[in-house]
Amino acid sequence: STQEAFRIEYDTFGELKVPSDKYYGAQTVRSTMNFKIGGVSERMPVQVIRAFGILKRAAAEVNQDYGLDPKIANAIVKAANEVAEGKLNDHFPLVVWQTGSGTQTNMNVNEVISNRAIEIMGGKLGSKTPVHPNDHVNKSQSSNDTFPTAMHIAAAQEVNEVLLPGLKKLQNALEAKSKEFSQIIKIGRTHTQDAVPLTLGQEFSGYVQQIKYGVARIESTMPRVYQLAAGGTAVGTGLNTRIGFAEKVAAKVAELTGLPFVTAPNKFEALAAHDALVELSGAMNTVACSLMKIANDIRFLGSGPRSGLGELILPENEPGSSIMPGKVNPTQCEAVTMVAAQVMGNHVAVTVGGSNGHFELNVFKPMMIKNVLNSARLLGDVCVSFTDNCVVGIQANTDRINKLMSESLMLVTALNPHIGYDKAAKIAKTAHKEGTTLKEAALKLGFLTSDQFDQWVKPKDMLGPQ
Amino acid sequence: STQEAFRIEYDTFGELKVPSDKYYGAQTVRSTMNFKIGGVSERMPVQVIRAFGILKRAAAEVNQDYGLDPKIANAIVKAANEVAEGKLNDHFPLVVWQTGSGTQTNMNVNEVISNRAIEIMGGKLGSKTPVHPNDHVNKSQSSNDTFPTAMHIAAAQEVNEVLLPGLKKLQNALEAKSKEFSQIIKIGRTHTQDAVPLTLGQEFSGYVQQIKYGVARIESTMPRVYQLAAGGTAVGTGLNTRIGFAEKVAAKVAELTGLPFVTAPNKFEALAAHDALVELSGAMNTVACSLMKIANDIRFLGSGPRSGLGELILPENEPGSSIMPGKVNPTQCEAVTMVAAQVMGNHVAVTVGGSNGHFELNVFKPMMIKNVLNSARLLGDVCVSFTDNCVVGIQANTDRINKLMSESLMLVTALNPHIGYDKAAKIAKTAHKEGTTLKEAALKLGFLTSDQFDQWVKPKDMLGPQ
Amino acid sequence: STQEAFRIEYDTFGELKVPSDKYYGAQTVRSTMNFKIGGVSERMPVQVIRAFGILKRAAAEVNQDYGLDPKIANAIVKAANEVAEGKLNDHFPLVVWQTGSGTQTNMNVNEVISNRAIEIMGGKLGSKTPVHPNDHVNKSQSSNDTFPTAMHIAAAQEVNEVLLPGLKKLQNALEAKSKEFSQIIKIGRTHTQDAVPLTLGQEFSGYVQQIKYGVARIESTMPRVYQLAAGGTAVGTGLNTRIGFAEKVAAKVAELTGLPFVTAPNKFEALAAHDALVELSGAMNTVACSLMKIANDIRFLGSGPRSGLGELILPENEPGSSIMPGKVNPTQCEAVTMVAAQVMGNHVAVTVGGSNGHFELNVFKPMMIKNVLNSARLLGDVCVSFTDNCVVGIQANTDRINKLMSESLMLVTALNPHIGYDKAAKIAKTAHKEGTTLKEAALKLGFLTSDQFDQWVKPKDMLGPQ
Amino acid sequence: STQEAFRIEYDTFGELKVPSDKYYGAQTVRSTMNFKIGGVSERMPVQVIRAFGILKRAAAEVNQDYGLDPKIANAIVKAANEVAEGKLNDHFPLVVWQTGSGTQTNMNVNEVISNRAIEIMGGKLGSKTPVHPNDHVNKSQSSNDTFPTAMHIAAAQEVNEVLLPGLKKLQNALEAKSKEFSQIIKIGRTHTQDAVPLTLGQEFSGYVQQIKYGVARIESTMPRVYQLAAGGTAVGTGLNTRIGFAEKVAAKVAELTGLPFVTAPNKFEALAAHDALVELSGAMNTVACSLMKIANDIRFLGSGPRSGLGELILPENEPGSSIMPGKVNPTQCEAVTMVAAQVMGNHVAVTVGGSNGHFELNVFKPMMIKNVLNSARLLGDVCVSFTDNCVVGIQANTDRINKLMSESLMLVTALNPHIGYDKAAKIAKTAHKEGTTLKEAALKLGFLTSDQFDQWVKPKDMLGPQ
Repeated sequence: STQEAFRIEYDTFGELKVPSDKYYGAQTVRSTMNFKIGGVSERMPVQVIRAFGILKRAAAEVNQDYGLDPKIANAIVKAANEVAEGKLNDHFPLVVWQTGSGTQTNMNVNEVISNRAIEIMGGKLGSKTPVHPNDHVNKSQSSNDTFPTAMHIAAAQEVNEVLLPGLKKLQNALEAKSKEFSQIIKIGRTHTQDAVPLTLGQEFSGYVQQIKYGVARIESTMPRVYQLAAGGTAVGTGLNTRIGFAEKVAAKVAELTGLPFVTAPNKFEALAAHDALVELSGAMNTVACSLMKIANDIRFLGSGPRSGLGELILPENEPGSSIMPGKVNPTQCEAVTMVAAQVMGNHVAVTVGGSNGHFELNVFKPMMIKNVLNSARLLGDVCVSFTDNCVVGIQANTDRINKLMSESLMLVTALNPHIGYDKAAKIAKTAHKEGTTLKEAALKLGFLTSDQFDQWVKPKDMLGPQ
Repeated sequence: STQEAFRIEYDTFGELKVPSDKYYGAQTVRSTMNFKIGGVSERMPVQVIRAFGILKRAAAEVNQDYGLDPKIANAIVKAANEVAEGKLNDHFPLVVWQTGSGTQTNMNVNEVISNRAIEIMGGKLGSKTPVHPNDHVNKSQSSNDTFPTAMHIAAAQEVNEVLLPGLKKLQNALEAKSKEFSQIIKIGRTHTQDAVPLTLGQEFSGYVQQIKYGVARIESTMPRVYQLAAGGTAVGTGLNTRIGFAEKVAAKVAELTGLPFVTAPNKFEALAAHDALVELSGAMNTVACSLMKIANDIRFLGSGPRSGLGELILPENEPGSSIMPGKVNPTQCEAVTMVAAQVMGNHVAVTVGGSNGHFELNVFKPMMIKNVLNSARLLGDVCVSFTDNCVVGIQANTDRINKLMSESLMLVTALNPHIGYDKAAKIAKTAHKEGTTLKEAALKLGFLTSDQFDQWVKPKDMLGPQ
Repeated sequence: STQEAFRIEYDTFGELKVPSDKYYGAQTVRSTMNFKIGGVSERMPVQVIRAFGILKRAAAEVNQDYGLDPKIANAIVKAANEVAEGKLNDHFPLVVWQTGSGTQTNMNVNEVISNRAIEIMGGKLGSKTPVHPNDHVNKSQSSNDTFPTAMHIAAAQEVNEVLLPGLKKLQNALEAKSKEFSQIIKIGRTHTQDAVPLTLGQEFSGYVQQIKYGVARIESTMPRVYQLAAGGTAVGTGLNTRIGFAEKVAAKVAELTGLPFVTAPNKFEALAAHDALVELSGAMNTVACSLMKIANDIRFLGSGPRSGLGELILPENEPGSSIMPGKVNPTQCEAVTMVAAQVMGNHVAVTVGGSNGHFELNVFKPMMIKNVLNSARLLGDVCVSFTDNCVVGIQANTDRINKLMSESLMLVTALNPHIGYDKAAKIAKTAHKEGTTLKEAALKLGFLTSDQFDQWVKPKDMLGPQ
Repeated sequence: STQEAFRIEYDTFGELKVPSDKYYGAQTVRSTMNFKIGGVSERMPVQVIRAFGILKRAAAEVNQDYGLDPKIANAIVKAANEVAEGKLNDHFPLVVWQTGSGTQTNMNVNEVISNRAIEIMGGKLGSKTPVHPNDHVNKSQSSNDTFPTAMHIAAAQEVNEVLLPGLKKLQNALEAKSKEFSQIIKIGRTHTQDAVPLTLGQEFSGYVQQIKYGVARIESTMPRVYQLAAGGTAVGTGLNTRIGFAEKVAAKVAELTGLPFVTAPNKFEALAAHDALVELSGAMNTVACSLMKIANDIRFLGSGPRSGLGELILPENEPGSSIMPGKVNPTQCEAVTMVAAQVMGNHVAVTVGGSNGHFELNVFKPMMIKNVLNSARLLGDVCVSFTDNCVVGIQANTDRINKLMSESLMLVTALNPHIGYDKAAKIAKTAHKEGTTLKEAALKLGFLTSDQFDQWVKPKDMLGPQ
């Protein structure tokens, strides 16, 4: 059968059987034998594989400028393009938990592209000719610079294609709600306790600001993510490359992706440290904090239907309970907060990895990029899900909002400038103890007249400075 | 003036001026010059200093068994005792951010004890005779085994004197409340949304269980904390000690502290790793999670007074706001949750330190013990504060509880076994949409009779299996 | 085509198209529509699905004891068994990022089992008869107790089947090496600097102890993981269950798994908090620290081949570089340290989730179990990989070890008891400055005779107390 | 005696005894009674107190513009200035573990300033006249906006006065070393294993880049830290302030501090979230990763003196061991790495606090600012200590460097373009197995001539692209 059909390939360690329907070669097979860790769900993220496709294509084109046989270069470009387009995903079986430089994935890519290019050129798979995985596909490259380059390409694309669009979509939806709710005056809450009023629109404007700044935070880290290690080769010196190679490859990648990649000004830093990814992860960690806060607020404000705060009515999307009929839960908020917790955890993994590089190479690369990509994807996706399935459908429960607002004792704060803090406190405490309204308590204590109360305690006048 | 009076002491690096009113010597002064990091608030915790006093006394007594001049031994014992009792705290100026082995603090201790012992014996401070800091006070010891020994002594004492008593006090207070509230039926909440009823006592019983298990968690880590490195000296071999020294020192320390210390079965592990402290920190991290959850619940259940859940009435301890008169806040809950966050952070610091030891010595020792002691102290203290100033004074707002319970739609769950999930769901949804009671909706839909409803939907019968 | 063939199913929210080749129903489809987050790689771990199979089978058997129609019970048992055996994995498309109670996965399980049971009984898929997903498969259950039950079953199985065997295998391999190396005396290193000697066997004995304690740490948390929430139903009261149900289900699960599961003594805690998983994660975090330290040591001791420490010869498993021919890297160590970083990150995610439960239900359940299972699997797998592909093949480079040891200046420590610390220090400093041997420096300084040096400075005598 | 002398003060909760030699009042005393958590070392950082002094002065000046009696305003300004200058530090006894809004510290400040202002104006301490703590000192303010304002002022000052200068000092020192070492060719190391050569100057240039970017990372977060909440009062609306107050206060603070503070564009976000501090903490976390990597490298490169890598000679600052005479350790590196671990831990504490705000107020404020300030201070201080006591004194051990470099097998990489990867690998493997030089192996294998070898394998030509 097909599964039992093998060809023989070799690496510097010897020969190995390779499934004949796969483009990968001996080093890939060897890695699958040596790293049985975690199984299929722990495979190198496809975003990294696709980024490698882009990089290998760019490198081949530049290598051609420097003398690589155009026929070979063309075949590599074609094959690399297929990798970049995700057409060869099945040929990348390696898990993240391999060598910390990602060398085996780089070789997996080299092998797949060389074999596919050989096929395109009519050669024999595994023959390494006319397209050699190291000498041609990896020309002027090392795992040490290609893997971090692929990391940055993958991260930048995920940020631009998933994370930022997700955040902006959420920002817009919150902004629309903030406007929609701009005239609804409600009780504020500090320390989870009743406080002075604000509008529901103002409350949502805080969320808008958080997400808006979240976008700014992500964007402010990107200049360093757009720097590519390519051209540094083995330890950052650029050994075995040509002057100008680094700059040209970065320019090609920029052209292919439409993103402003440049060559890293210092390749030693670019190989030995991944501070740029720690930084990006830190920005995503901040976004996670914002989302946790917003989702918590929304589920508490929407709590009920009878025994909660009940100020918001959240969309009902699915049955909420397998035992309690008719129950509806703020499930989108829960997905958001779970993602937030995951991103915080991912960030610690990235931090630990980022801090433990040694000498010329950080060898936590696959783990770091896995977590960065996971955070970007989950945050972006959950913003879209939260927006579409919750935020856009949020309604204000104005009856409930008005009722709570009118009963509040904290409206007493408006009296501070007129009768002083101490007397105002007495009114609030009296009303609280006796279960009366503020006005009743105020009049009973004789601190002001009924007219004064009505004139001074107006929620509408409490929404801003005067 | 006194401040300007100095004596000259020397170490293997040369001479240094030492304030004449201090017992410490040249190596301590040198450390203050080389590590100007963080200032006074970053000093080595006094618990570590006091633990060193215990250890140095124990070592001197055992050294006497092995031939140390009894006069010298006695003087060391006396001086070490003063350190153990905290009488010489002013003589320990070093910060945590020094050498990662804590060598400089060990030498600070050696210097203080030798000089104080010299003084007791009528000698001249700084003369190193008749009591030499290395040859006598540090006899059969190295920083490499004394510092981790002091770490374990200090941690074990803080756990037993502060953390566990605090947790048990809180457990008892919660248990008393659980009993007090055992007959109060209230609405449950899942997903922050209304759910089926339980008693307030049952709700608190969950908190009791969390804290009870917290105690068990801490205790389950202690066997490994009770293992002492003393006797391992420089790399764990016990070079320059005598056979039996390790066991005898551990027994002495056990006697002096009343805690079941034993000698570590493997000294290489005891110097090179501090997994036992990572483990203890992990248990405290779990306790922090428990406390965060409990304090969050209590502040939300006590939220209001008019616009919150309002089921609990929390003690009013202080004015809550500088601008909102009469405001009272769940401030004890806030201290608890802030401490919980700190403990989670401390745990990561301990984890990072614990994972980064190299070869025969982990050199994150001072940082690790600082964080472990901080977590233990803060958790223990905040449990006492929370108990005394909040938990014992919590009252149930039974009017509010009854009102919410009776309005709940989730009582419909009791109908599942009688009319099935789907019909029950229709009743709940109808009542919710039309703002009616469950019974009204049920009768309207014709799914059961009024008598059946009254017989089947009894909150009291919903509190347990049948 | 098959893919376009649908049947109509409904839930309390209405009708939905369900692929006709799938056993799941409307609620599952609805979840796939509402939670497009992360894609296939973010699916609920199969271990949870299989644990659900075990639980649903146990519940059906117990429900039969309490009166469930034996024909229905039998069909459920059969179908549940197929789920437990992983035969129906394709029917569980939901991602982790759903409702935080895992309700949708519980319903996915209920739907698959009911439809498969209906099929077994000759009924029509989607008809909910004769086996209803809620009324029969979920009988006496709620997502609120089944999901945490499945979490504990899955975690306990992964710990027992993957994590502990992996750790024990590594422990044994390290122990064998410790014995093999017991006569090889080598230089110790503290602060990464040369220190007094120990045997390579002693050095490895520290690693053995770390892993041995790691096993003990994991095991000490298991009593609380073996407690099952089943029987608590919606909020922990056990509403709609029968007295004895909880205990019987736990006993059945214990029987089916061969693990000592019991019913949780307090169901309120078991639903509202997942401290037991935070605790287990904390133990795994400690193990991660141990592994990070061991793997770091081994790669540094094996560094070279020409410019490193070179004391160990590590197995060569694969080509190490795509650009540097002949390079061999400590790739297994790198996989270990990357896994360690991931586990530390996962632990923070679990901690954040564990601390954020509210009222009667923690709604970070899917995220928490995903991370716990991931940590257990990765740690277990990487221990096996590390053992098989590295530890068992480690060789001591005795020539190199002997050379370094004989040159060491720290052997001077053996002179402390004879000539005192200060003179010994002078010898070491002199030898260091002048690049001579210790003996040459000692004799030059006139502190002792050649015979005394030879008698006192014997590495073999420095390996333990005397 | 002085200690027993008290005056009576009152707050809205009643009367309390206040030490007569203190300026604080009843609310401060009440807090010390209610929050006995952690003791003196857990006090509110003085940086926060001093920032409050600046803010209260600014507010008084602006309040005067809006009509506050100039005599009162002047007295407040004077008193506030003394707070800002740190002259009244003894009057701030409160710990961090208080209410999560910092209200008690705001009141502590109000009380101290009002009493000191009363004293200046010849009044009676505790009389609240002519300067009332709430009505005058806190005029137009709330704890809810003043505390976050003080947080931002304190953080910005610590960043500018301690953190950034420390980082820049280190950057300069590393840059000088990079230049000094620019001609020293050494072996590179990847995966801790020998790799191709680079200059020691290139290696250090990577560190320079890391710190340079660290500065950029910190600076890129500051625009959001420079935004002040002042003017938002209780919930962000600005109730009880005047139009323009917020802008004027920010301008005054900018003037007083010389830092570009502005009023926050959205006060709701500024009170309810502290994302700006999470972001700043994230940048510091990245810096911690950089420092951990650099310090680890330096201690490993400086390891020895006889059994380590030995390429660097680090300054000897103090005796390294209490038992091993003559031992010198990389203690500054250890302080750096311990600080790095602490900063990573602090960051998690800040993250957890930042994610757990509810509604209009985040109540993890004191904990968050404590950790942010701690990170900034420790990082800044340790950079200075590391620079002065280690980096500037680092010497290259050129003999050792040359020896290692010349023996390296990885120089073989230079042959790739000439003889291909596979043949080059054979040469390296042969030399490794047979313990010969590369050249010997190359000639033996007959892959090239002696002349070709000499021409192609030149370390000097391997330092960059061609």
